[in-house]
Amino acid sequence: LKTVILCGGSGTRLWPLSTTESPKQFVQIFNGKSLFEKTIERNNSDKYSIILNEKQLPLAKTQIAENCFFITEEVGRNTAPAIAFAALSSDPEEVLLVLPSDHLIENIEEYKKCIELAEQYAKEDKLVTFGIKPTYPETGYGYIQAKEHDVLSFKEKPDLETAKKYLADGEYYWNSGMFCFKAKTFLEELQKYSPQIYDACKTVYEEKKSDNNTLTLPADKLNRIPSLSIDYAVMEHSEKIKVVPSDINWKDLGSFDSLDTVLDKDENGNTQNERLIVHESKNNLIIKQLDKDIALFNVEDLIIVQSEGSILIGKKGKSQNVKKVFELRKTK
Amino acid sequence: LKTVILCGGSGTRLWPLSTTESPKQFVQIFNGKSLFEKTIERNNSDKYSIILNEKQLPLAKTQIAENCFFITEEVGRNTAPAIAFAALSSDPEEVLLVLPSDHLIENIEEYKKCIELAEQYAKEDKLVTFGIKPTYPETGYGYIQAKEHDVLSFKEKPDLETAKKYLADGEYYWNSGMFCFKAKTFLEELQKYSPQIYDACKTVYEEKKSDNNTLTLPADKLNRIPSLSIDYAVMEHSEKIKVVPSDINWKDLGSFDSLDTVLDKDENGNTQNERLIVHESKNNLIIKQLDKDIALFNVEDLIIVQSEGSILIGKKGKSQNVKKVFELRKTK
Repeated sequence: LKTVILCGGSGTRLWPLSTTESPKQFVQIFNGKSLFEKTIERNNSDKYSIILNEKQLPLAKTQIAENCFFITEEVGRNTAPAIAFAALSSDPEEVLLVLPSDHLIENIEEYKKCIELAEQYAKEDKLVTFGIKPTYPETGYGYIQAKEHDVLSFKEKPDLETAKKYLADGEYYWNSGMFCFKAKTFLEELQKYSPQIYDACKTVYEEKKSDNNTLTLPADKLNRIPSLSIDYAVMEHSEKIKVVPSDINWKDLGSFDSLDTVLDKDENGNTQNERLIVHESKNNLIIKQLDKDIALFNVEDLIIVQSEGSILIGKKGKSQNVKKVFELRKTK
Repeated sequence: LKTVILCGGSGTRLWPLSTTESPKQFVQIFNGKSLFEKTIERNNSDKYSIILNEKQLPLAKTQIAENCFFITEEVGRNTAPAIAFAALSSDPEEVLLVLPSDHLIENIEEYKKCIELAEQYAKEDKLVTFGIKPTYPETGYGYIQAKEHDVLSFKEKPDLETAKKYLADGEYYWNSGMFCFKAKTFLEELQKYSPQIYDACKTVYEEKKSDNNTLTLPADKLNRIPSLSIDYAVMEHSEKIKVVPSDINWKDLGSFDSLDTVLDKDENGNTQNERLIVHESKNNLIIKQLDKDIALFNVEDLIIVQSEGSILIGKKGKSQNVKKVFELRKTK
């Protein structure tokens, strides 16, 4: 089993914690570990393929040392091409476990069982996706409708009404963005359903410039490849799909509100922090990267993020607006 | 007329904007000017005597260049001794206008008229105090009960009920802490009503170590002098008091809530700031001393102060709690 980790995306919804140079998956806020490091630790594989922006390479190398092949993209082309490059640079019979780098999975025992089952299906030339049992009507994820291990349909991000129906129904799972298949199976299905992407990736790969442990993909070549997700390019069309329902305490840490659910709290519900001074203040999320005091009085439910260059202060429950703040900032 | 400016007090209620090394009166937050500079500018005197902590001297010297005599105290002994040193180092017949350094006065024309009247009384050997017409029932100031220019009584900080009565009555003024008198008159009255302070100051002054423009008062000498305010030591006892009612748009900037009333706002009611990025946020006080972006989303009525070493975030209307935060921090 080779673990393929997708590190693309700079995560504007977590600005200023996450920037292009230091994206969220590399920020060490979980007792000194990053989500990337926790992903490595959780899988403990013999082989890794890491797909990332070339700007992130120096940082990634400080967080993983061994058994690692890096694929650097100068520009991101979404997941279908990224995974294609991982598959093209693997043995065709090799089973790939494809994982985003910004998930937190807390039930490791159950996770390992799911991976075993997925690997079994992958060896039977299936494309496996992992479905997460929804715990609330999230509107920010795609859903998979399934019966046992068979996929009935893929669903786009629903509105709240529809999400509530999905939740009540019991046949619907969050599409986690984790996959498992043989390199060969994925490439065959990609060629079948998205031949343009397959051909473009193959051409770029054959012109490749790689040294021992790094495949470097420059923008001028990548720009020839259609930018498309694996779901649109392959999963929604293939007849070889299997789903592994995964009750693994899974969290996608894509926003400060979701980060807040996993960070340790003190007795007032404020994020644990040695340099925090508090008077009549509770339930505040505090993330800071600088060694400075933060003092609070008479505030509740705030999101406070201090990075090297900026300070962000907002209201819990509204962290979707960080993206708007980020965009406003760019226009300044 | 010699202007005597009292710069004592580090202002814990304005931490972290105000620290011992850089107290509030020297922080340049009014279009690049400090309260100290605005005090100098407002009075435009031929001569100044500046009384301050010796740690503040380098900073003060960057904000005033000419016609200035500095009296540095290694430890503060309250206003009676400070003013005694200013008087002892002046010509006995010289009229002193004694001013705190942390006031803002916006009606300059009226202010000048008040000073003229005060100077006239001072030349007649009176001790003049300036009474501010109250605009709301403030409980944090002392009050002066007066009839025309005659003082009936000095009142300590009242409770809210009493403050409301004072406000309704019309005979009561806020005790502004500004004074005007001849050096000689003040020293005579000090000797009469607080001979211990007078004698101690005189002794210390005679052992003085001063160069051209600085009188340096070390802690071991100052500690021999009783620490007492001019109100307790002289004003409440003397029969030579006159009051000048002053309708001068006066503000004592002792808290972030009071600072908020005088800083310029943008169209959303947030403090004007070039590096501010705002989404659905209004009426926030933002004071920052570092060249960093501050981004806000969905927050209102916050006090946000960013200094070199710390960040303070709290709720408007509660800035009296800054003092508590400051004390908590010291015990950490």
